Amino acid sequence: MALRSNSPTSERRRPHGGEPIGIGLLGCGVVGGGVLKLLQANAEAFQARVGVPLEVRRVLVRDLDKPRVVELDRAVLTTDPDAVLTDPSVEVVIEVIGGEEPAGQYVERALGSGRCVVTANKALLAARGPALLDLADERRVDLAFEAAVGGGIPVVRTLRDAFASDDVFEMAGILNGTCNYILTRMIDDGVTFESALADAQAKGYAEADPTLDTGGFDAAHKLVVLAMLAFGARPPHDGMVIEGIDGLELKDIEIAARLGYTVKHLVIGRDHGAAVELRAHPTLIRRTSVLGSVSGVLNGIKLEGRALGPCFLSGRGAGDMPTAVSVVADLLDVARSLVAGVPGLVTGGRRLVKRPLLAPGEATMRHYLRLRVRDEPGVMARVAGALGDAGVSLSQIEQAEGKGGEADIVLVTHRAKDGAITTALEAMKKSADLVKGAVHLRIEEL
Amino acid sequence: MALRSNSPTSERRRPHGGEPIGIGLLGCGVVGGGVLKLLQANAEAFQARVGVPLEVRRVLVRDLDKPRVVELDRAVLTTDPDAVLTDPSVEVVIEVIGGEEPAGQYVERALGSGRCVVTANKALLAARGPALLDLADERRVDLAFEAAVGGGIPVVRTLRDAFASDDVFEMAGILNGTCNYILTRMIDDGVTFESALADAQAKGYAEADPTLDTGGFDAAHKLVVLAMLAFGARPPHDGMVIEGIDGLELKDIEIAARLGYTVKHLVIGRDHGAAVELRAHPTLIRRTSVLGSVSGVLNGIKLEGRALGPCFLSGRGAGDMPTAVSVVADLLDVARSLVAGVPGLVTGGRRLVKRPLLAPGEATMRHYLRLRVRDEPGVMARVAGALGDAGVSLSQIEQAEGKGGEADIVLVTHRAKDGAITTALEAMKKSADLVKGAVHLRIEEL
Repeated sequence: MALRSNSPTSERRRPHGGEPIGIGLLGCGVVGGGVLKLLQANAEAFQARVGVPLEVRRVLVRDLDKPRVVELDRAVLTTDPDAVLTDPSVEVVIEVIGGEEPAGQYVERALGSGRCVVTANKALLAARGPALLDLADERRVDLAFEAAVGGGIPVVRTLRDAFASDDVFEMAGILNGTCNYILTRMIDDGVTFESALADAQAKGYAEADPTLDTGGFDAAHKLVVLAMLAFGARPPHDGMVIEGIDGLELKDIEIAARLGYTVKHLVIGRDHGAAVELRAHPTLIRRTSVLGSVSGVLNGIKLEGRALGPCFLSGRGAGDMPTAVSVVADLLDVARSLVAGVPGLVTGGRRLVKRPLLAPGEATMRHYLRLRVRDEPGVMARVAGALGDAGVSLSQIEQAEGKGGEADIVLVTHRAKDGAITTALEAMKKSADLVKGAVHLRIEEL
Repeated sequence: MALRSNSPTSERRRPHGGEPIGIGLLGCGVVGGGVLKLLQANAEAFQARVGVPLEVRRVLVRDLDKPRVVELDRAVLTTDPDAVLTDPSVEVVIEVIGGEEPAGQYVERALGSGRCVVTANKALLAARGPALLDLADERRVDLAFEAAVGGGIPVVRTLRDAFASDDVFEMAGILNGTCNYILTRMIDDGVTFESALADAQAKGYAEADPTLDTGGFDAAHKLVVLAMLAFGARPPHDGMVIEGIDGLELKDIEIAARLGYTVKHLVIGRDHGAAVELRAHPTLIRRTSVLGSVSGVLNGIKLEGRALGPCFLSGRGAGDMPTAVSVVADLLDVARSLVAGVPGLVTGGRRLVKRPLLAPGEATMRHYLRLRVRDEPGVMARVAGALGDAGVSLSQIEQAEGKGGEADIVLVTHRAKDGAITTALEAMKKSADLVKGAVHLRIEEL
């Protein structure tokens, strides 16, 4: 084929004079060391991709004399955060210290001084994500955090890039590896929550104080960040339905399995236009569904776009090397944005709009109820009546042989508002038919 | 927090004088119209993201007078491909005509004249992907084709961006929606291949001549393109194991289900260093595996990275709107690369290396065999002997009650080379124990 001379007018390919992009690294533990190794090993490919070299100019360490996994010029190392944060040759700050402070103030200072930031800090994102995104937006710099939400799963970049021209109206995800590991052990091996938790702690999958994970808070915080990216919404801080897995009984997992369901700690986000629905709680989902196949410490998320349809991603939600790889991927994005002179805009150039949460009682789904009742005539009629009065219709009823004057009733409802279940349970409590608190789990058909 | 004055030295934010990027669109059917609609609806956000406006300068149509889904300046429309391909104000050509020709020569001319190309043309990619990538590489322009491989699944950008610093050593995927729809109907509804195919044709999921899809060729071609991106390999054109689903019997699907497996048309890629293993064939996989949950017209792919671990993606593999959204996502990438003055390098800046295919007989996996044998003494011993002689050990044996002097033996083997099975089957044929050809399906534990 003859090449034609009618090339496009604008010769956009500009020489950069090889001027490298300066990087400051905060933290040089396993993840930080991994980042340095990846940068050295791929230097040539990255330069081809970005257009200029990436140069590590400053590395904050705790101990100057500790042996490193990569060779570094001693002059690059420092124990003084200011040496990184005020170095005029540092354009991108990578924060892999972890924990809320002092990492938070470093990130804030870096953004405030017009530097781009790549962080893997999920605690920081959870606590101050929206405010930091605001600051980045105001200063027109990038704040990249793929590694902090979903670890090795490219969900942030998928929302930003693949869905750039689409509207995501629904998300459902397993975003906490600790919860998923514990639930998988309970389901597969029939062990109790307490025993599965102890195992997770022994394996390093759960903290000594596991509340942030098992209470559902970590997953909920990630959902808030994803809702910003997916729905362009800035939800209020409070009022979300957040329930953990710490109260889950093995018995309900077994009954769910018999009914064809598995139990997962799910985050659910739906865009209702005026309001957004955000929930994080243990949920019954079909064992054969794609999220039902995400087990162990893996995370997974299903996005529903108006045009693109369903898109499902899963992978490791955490871990040192997945984190380092995600940090480096973010760094490449940020570097390309710097060279182009446009911030990468993690929100895809969209303005975030303050929107209220859907009132918790208004969310609609199917429900699983297990009621311990007095084994007496008329009880089932009153239970069914309470549900009927609240407008809840039943899809499945199961009552096992009673014992000691008590019986367990398992009910699966058709779709009903969460608030209707609350109303019905309150009515039952008044009638004194319930021997103890009802087990209420939501069902999602995904 | 007080903002500090120690901003980074290099002020990389360059004014672009608002100089827009000129786009030429080849084809204005449903996908092309969708692209125009998305560009109009998101113009502001895209400008914020790219840094300059995106302007559609030329649109190739068949009929100037046909009503359009979007309002377009009449002067933009043309029936002459040259008007698009030689317009000096066109920097990016979007090709959504489909089919190998004349689309192929348009794409080749666009790349050859230094224009970037975004294409959704899977037939073209299948036939000439490697050569077109070479041309793009030589001319240092972008050739983006997310929509052509995996449709609405962001697998190309995930390989390029998320895995930028990782080595992918294994992939397994369901890349053909027609095959997956037919298999899902066979599995769920117990209909034959012929009947499921007729249904797929009626629904528009299969062509009148379905061979490209049901013969496994479409999936195999996509695998070749993905192997270039994932392994940096340029495999030879011939010699790949390609088997379709057209010979599949319902009986084997039912037996597989009883054994806990589902049957999927899978592509498998493994990087063995010196050689690459590429195969496309019907495969038994665990029903509870993540790929086992991908059903209907959905596609899915599992990537295994050394650092990132497993990463699984699924979604719609085709369709007008998913395609339009993927085309626009690619356009944004290409536009950002143009503004930055660096080609996006779909291969991540890596040189592609010519590498041979692993000899088909060398690939190792478990196997499923169904043998119709003469129901006579000594047959089972000879069958087992033939396998044993070839070094194949058995994991499961099942023989149903014989009928009319014939019996079906189902065998599941431990891991063995593909070539060993061929050897054993040839030995059996010689003994005349086999009444008809053996059914041989490979098993992958994913």
